[in-house]
Amino acid sequence: MQTFGFIGLGIMGSAMAKNLIKAGFTVTVWNRSADKCRELEALGATVAATPRQVVEACPVTFAMLADPAAALAVCDGPDGVLAGVSAGKGYVDMSTVDAATSVQIAAAVTARGGRFLEAPVSGSRKPAEDGTLIILAAGDRSLHDEALPGLERMGKKMLHLGEVGNGARMKLVVNMVMGGMMTAFCEGLALGEKAGLHQADILDVIDSGAMANPMFRLKGGQIGQGKFAAAFPLKHMQKDMRLAVALGDGVEQPLFSAATANELFKRAKEMGFGDEDFAAVFKAIRA
Amino acid sequence: MQTFGFIGLGIMGSAMAKNLIKAGFTVTVWNRSADKCRELEALGATVAATPRQVVEACPVTFAMLADPAAALAVCDGPDGVLAGVSAGKGYVDMSTVDAATSVQIAAAVTARGGRFLEAPVSGSRKPAEDGTLIILAAGDRSLHDEALPGLERMGKKMLHLGEVGNGARMKLVVNMVMGGMMTAFCEGLALGEKAGLHQADILDVIDSGAMANPMFRLKGGQIGQGKFAAAFPLKHMQKDMRLAVALGDGVEQPLFSAATANELFKRAKEMGFGDEDFAAVFKAIRA
Amino acid sequence: MQTFGFIGLGIMGSAMAKNLIKAGFTVTVWNRSADKCRELEALGATVAATPRQVVEACPVTFAMLADPAAALAVCDGPDGVLAGVSAGKGYVDMSTVDAATSVQIAAAVTARGGRFLEAPVSGSRKPAEDGTLIILAAGDRSLHDEALPGLERMGKKMLHLGEVGNGARMKLVVNMVMGGMMTAFCEGLALGEKAGLHQADILDVIDSGAMANPMFRLKGGQIGQGKFAAAFPLKHMQKDMRLAVALGDGVEQPLFSAATANELFKRAKEMGFGDEDFAAVFKAIRA
Amino acid sequence: MQTFGFIGLGIMGSAMAKNLIKAGFTVTVWNRSADKCRELEALGATVAATPRQVVEACPVTFAMLADPAAALAVCDGPDGVLAGVSAGKGYVDMSTVDAATSVQIAAAVTARGGRFLEAPVSGSRKPAEDGTLIILAAGDRSLHDEALPGLERMGKKMLHLGEVGNGARMKLVVNMVMGGMMTAFCEGLALGEKAGLHQADILDVIDSGAMANPMFRLKGGQIGQGKFAAAFPLKHMQKDMRLAVALGDGVEQPLFSAATANELFKRAKEMGFGDEDFAAVFKAIRA
Repeated sequence: MQTFGFIGLGIMGSAMAKNLIKAGFTVTVWNRSADKCRELEALGATVAATPRQVVEACPVTFAMLADPAAALAVCDGPDGVLAGVSAGKGYVDMSTVDAATSVQIAAAVTARGGRFLEAPVSGSRKPAEDGTLIILAAGDRSLHDEALPGLERMGKKMLHLGEVGNGARMKLVVNMVMGGMMTAFCEGLALGEKAGLHQADILDVIDSGAMANPMFRLKGGQIGQGKFAAAFPLKHMQKDMRLAVALGDGVEQPLFSAATANELFKRAKEMGFGDEDFAAVFKAIRA
Repeated sequence: MQTFGFIGLGIMGSAMAKNLIKAGFTVTVWNRSADKCRELEALGATVAATPRQVVEACPVTFAMLADPAAALAVCDGPDGVLAGVSAGKGYVDMSTVDAATSVQIAAAVTARGGRFLEAPVSGSRKPAEDGTLIILAAGDRSLHDEALPGLERMGKKMLHLGEVGNGARMKLVVNMVMGGMMTAFCEGLALGEKAGLHQADILDVIDSGAMANPMFRLKGGQIGQGKFAAAFPLKHMQKDMRLAVALGDGVEQPLFSAATANELFKRAKEMGFGDEDFAAVFKAIRA
Repeated sequence: MQTFGFIGLGIMGSAMAKNLIKAGFTVTVWNRSADKCRELEALGATVAATPRQVVEACPVTFAMLADPAAALAVCDGPDGVLAGVSAGKGYVDMSTVDAATSVQIAAAVTARGGRFLEAPVSGSRKPAEDGTLIILAAGDRSLHDEALPGLERMGKKMLHLGEVGNGARMKLVVNMVMGGMMTAFCEGLALGEKAGLHQADILDVIDSGAMANPMFRLKGGQIGQGKFAAAFPLKHMQKDMRLAVALGDGVEQPLFSAATANELFKRAKEMGFGDEDFAAVFKAIRA
Repeated sequence: MQTFGFIGLGIMGSAMAKNLIKAGFTVTVWNRSADKCRELEALGATVAATPRQVVEACPVTFAMLADPAAALAVCDGPDGVLAGVSAGKGYVDMSTVDAATSVQIAAAVTARGGRFLEAPVSGSRKPAEDGTLIILAAGDRSLHDEALPGLERMGKKMLHLGEVGNGARMKLVVNMVMGGMMTAFCEGLALGEKAGLHQADILDVIDSGAMANPMFRLKGGQIGQGKFAAAFPLKHMQKDMRLAVALGDGVEQPLFSAATANELFKRAKEMGFGDEDFAAVFKAIRA
């Protein structure tokens, strides 16, 4: 079996690394706060003292960090990822970062002779635990193929999207569609209610036809109950809508609907719903 | 087995009446052009000379006309539906009409002692043939229950939405959500393409997650091929968006996203795509 | 001096008729409630018993009614305007009505051999009193020329816009621009305030440059004081925005900005500001 | 008379410096390409060899650079502005830069004991030559008062807007209103034309009422002639709309109209009108 490194053992990373261990791979891990490593050590993982040691010990290392700043920080310094990169080493960053950050890390890795694969995921805790993430990979093909046995244990769907940056761009595009669907859905629910229809009937009709989808099914029920516990926080959705509109700006693609949805999410944020689920945009629409 | 009348044997009505006959009901039919009756007669239906005779012959009569004008026309005159209505008669209008037309027909039927059920459907030719329509009924409860054995042969999903007019309003709400979903989807495809992603990859990612739905699957493929044969003509979608926004005006529900989507469909209509499928809004967005 | 009839002595009509009398014209008046006629009688007007008598007595009759319903009502019946119309009679309707109503009245007048001029005005009480209205005339040219000496006493600016209906359409277009200007202005004030600028400074800067206009000057001050006494009620502006967007629908002109402004006015109406001045849209934006 | 320094002699700076000389002030100038200094030298200015020398020679120095990069560049290095700043020196940057750049320069100047005033202007070549700019000053009050005799020769209107950054923010707010006004105006012209009205009539009506303003008067005529020579390039307007919407994002102010106008400008840019005047958004609307 292959040997893999894994850096970053938060909710997502921890679940993903476990799936690698369960699959029988030899896994070396590192996390900023060492206590998170204990559980994986108990399952059979080797714990390294630094990110550098992980990379030195493994031909291919996965990373799952919280944000662009953390993704960059783990690379730098004498104990960082880059210090461990030598010719042929593979580094697969699965963190959700912007395209520019991905390109920057890719350049640093390849400058030292290493190979880089960007591989952000779609899906949260549950799919991470179940190994059913959607993995939006982009970058070095040979590394992609070498990492594939590991990726297949973490995700149910793997795509290779071309050059580094395309993974980040795909996430924006997909989240933009998701945000637009949600505002259309919430406007429909709000209009229906005011026009004398029952929300449950609207959900039932939509769920019986060609628009039926798991998101409407799940969120529709929560909206009906006024429950907006954050699976995907509204403020993050608004940030993604904003970045998607900005991406449209860069490539000269007008996005009238997305720009309008963005303002609706802003209104919801202004009303204090930024930390609730993005379905809470309903409360800004229905108000 | 029950006896049912059926008025209006176009593409939809013909398929629906056949399902009643196949189920073993005794069916009396009428159509403006009599040749459409032949096929049903061959299957065992009785052909009446006028709408009035259908209603007189049957406790419950279904109707499926082309538009509000036809739905009103079939009611009037010495040979019309109303002339046949007496105490207790049931009239189930399954045509797609606006709420005001439904309310008008209901008033005329009940003024003569009859019972009225509005029952527009969601779904087109194929679901009509397969008996898998979604039926948005509203109005007289006793008639609904009496008609149910027949409705269950025509649809897979039957709802009773309360007072007459709610069926029409539900169709508007649902179509408005559908229009908004489509513009969000098309903006995502357009942005992705311009940002260097492959449309097939975008479709693949969306279809693998919580947004996955039959409409995106079907229309996404057609957009990719540049094929926009009308299943639901764009000009009809634009009309429904307009009416939905107007409904929002009446009940004081602002609809920022729907209003924006409406303008996108208008742009597409202005560009000459009114008779193509409503997915052709992609060409107005991507242009 | 010419003889003119004047029908409808509300706030606007009364001021306009006075200007005709002051200019030395012979004026015959009628109003639904006769007490409104006294003041004009004291100034020298003849009071007629019915609209018909006004028209019979005068070659050219002006009318200024409250709305389309009143404009139509005054025409009908044995005592109405139409009953008095004979070959060559001139009827100048200055009420604010939709294009369809204008066309309908025009057809009835011309069917009796009369001549019709649509002449809605831009401006409210003060310009009516000062004789500085803007008069948006359309229809019969010979009548326009004959009425001109009277129109010149009521307005400072007279246009002839072509066929009947164009007056109504011009009002919609102009009000739509006005509504859009107001939302842009209010968004600027709201953004500036939240960004730490003083509203007075923003008004000062705008008023010093190429955008400077009386409306911003007047409404800007009122917004700053939170005073929204209705000069032009918000609900009427919203209605005009809606009709303008509908006009765009009819002529296939997408109107993204106007549609968005319309939703903002709707939001303000929903919040309870329908009877305040249309500048109260600020409160829906700043909220 | 006071002594002033002036750095940056492009179209704007050159005209502004001349107005200082004409007013009798002693002026020391510097420009990156020295030939631009000749004309001012002929009028009586002293030419310095470096930005540093200007600052060392004058208690108060004005600067008018092309963009944020140039504004920063002129400050740095052994010959730069900062090298010349000592206790009490005044530096008035009149360049159009973002708030962050202003704050950065202010910090560097004050760290050396100097005083900083941000003072971007509203108005282009003609007002610069005529000394009728609008000056949006913010920052050090004592410096503002000391610079005022000079500012009064360059502008007709001087505001002090509080802390550094407010000048830049005011420009964004004002340009955002201007962009929104223009889209409302162009939609009105487009709708009117399609509805059968003459553009000249629409312009005439608007120019006769409370909305009348120099911008509509000037741009309306140019739109009618299809002339879009850039006074303010559309791509710059779109950039400012984008930044204004982003500012709204930062302070939680939804901007539905501005976001929509931004997309219209984007569409116009995509259609190839980025280098034409911002009134060319008409061609994207009317298309």
